[in-house]
Amino acid sequence: MRRIKLTLDYIGTAYSGWQRQPDRDTIQKRVEDALFSLTGERAAVVASGRTDAGVHALGQVAHFDTNADIPVKNFMTGLNHFLPPDIRILKAEKAASDFHARFSAHEKTYCYCIYESKFDRAIFLNRAVRVSERLDVKAMRSASFAFKGEHDFTSFMSTGSDTVSAVRNVKDVRVVRHSGLVKIFVTANGFLYNMVRLMAGVLVRAGQGKIDGEGVEKLIALKNKHAVREVMPAEGLYLVSVKY
Amino acid sequence: MRRIKLTLDYIGTAYSGWQRQPDRDTIQKRVEDALFSLTGERAAVVASGRTDAGVHALGQVAHFDTNADIPVKNFMTGLNHFLPPDIRILKAEKAASDFHARFSAHEKTYCYCIYESKFDRAIFLNRAVRVSERLDVKAMRSASFAFKGEHDFTSFMSTGSDTVSAVRNVKDVRVVRHSGLVKIFVTANGFLYNMVRLMAGVLVRAGQGKIDGEGVEKLIALKNKHAVREVMPAEGLYLVSVKY
Repeated sequence: MRRIKLTLDYIGTAYSGWQRQPDRDTIQKRVEDALFSLTGERAAVVASGRTDAGVHALGQVAHFDTNADIPVKNFMTGLNHFLPPDIRILKAEKAASDFHARFSAHEKTYCYCIYESKFDRAIFLNRAVRVSERLDVKAMRSASFAFKGEHDFTSFMSTGSDTVSAVRNVKDVRVVRHSGLVKIFVTANGFLYNMVRLMAGVLVRAGQGKIDGEGVEKLIALKNKHAVREVMPAEGLYLVSVKY
Repeated sequence: MRRIKLTLDYIGTAYSGWQRQPDRDTIQKRVEDALFSLTGERAAVVASGRTDAGVHALGQVAHFDTNADIPVKNFMTGLNHFLPPDIRILKAEKAASDFHARFSAHEKTYCYCIYESKFDRAIFLNRAVRVSERLDVKAMRSASFAFKGEHDFTSFMSTGSDTVSAVRNVKDVRVVRHSGLVKIFVTANGFLYNMVRLMAGVLVRAGQGKIDGEGVEKLIALKNKHAVREVMPAEGLYLVSVKY
């Protein structure tokens, strides 16, 4: 039995998220089905985290166990042969038997992509989310400092989370204007359900001059799941990378 | 009768190009159908140029004539109501009666997008074209100077063109490395069939050290439709803007 670590990217638009669900087309289902086609084995493919419907990944990481007699590097080309082109295995490596894509992860980075336009643009369809006004990126940056460090992020968690502790360590938040987009990068040791999309909603409000760093601190201090209402849409969210 | 000028963007992936064809879903068809739904009039919508199947536009320009009693600015929201989300009208303006989207155009800018990777990446599916090796962008830039100015571009025209003269004035070629992509911007007073895709193919060869500026000059001097074989795929091409 070998444990294999996969790095993959995908466009989440066509899928009901990562996690296998009955009667739904999901990324986990596609990868597990490809693995079955390749090896004849039904194995669970465990990801670093379950991305929601419409969320994209540039560097999702997953693992599975196999008894198949296939050279490790051939898992990449083999799985890609059976996967649709909007899901691509970028790397397949042998992992230690105790490696776990979710529990071994030290930190993850997400990116939230926004474009500023009075009207929808086809070019950003399902890839970035529109705000009507020009955002004050400096104000967003300034407000984002309040997120940094270890906090109880209950206010930045959607109801439905089954997490025991809401304490997370946000190692970095970067707001950049780039290629006509405003991009918010968040790196943390872990994320709560909808955490980045709620943070992005508050930072957009900061960019509109409606809240500052002190206001964000107060929201965090509330530790209230209903404190923040601005859940930004899924299609602007990208899982960038996972560190082990 | 008023003449209306439209600026629109689209993702060309789902369409058989701009031009209306029997039994094909094309962008022209979609815009003309939307116009019919909005005004009840069957009018021809004329674009600055016919983009091929799979080619995208950030700022295509088109015109049509109408007798409909609709305020000009309402053509944007009205047409968008009937158009699919991968085609968006960005602007609708009243134009002079002798304005012609194709014949009045002074210059157009295209962008060709390339990513460098040994393997396909989902994130760039239908949006950029893969080359296996890292490109020498300086060498591409150096070779690109040969294209600048007025030349007979017969060597950079696919057979099937019905153009009388192949003389075009290339006003600018820029090669930039940006957001993980190598982008080639070409501005000219007009383009021949497949001209940008043929130029991009030769510039990729320059980036691989296989041809230099002198080699490009020689290709141009051949004035032979069969001189260049590297037609880069449609999905990397974007019509950026049209100037009048």
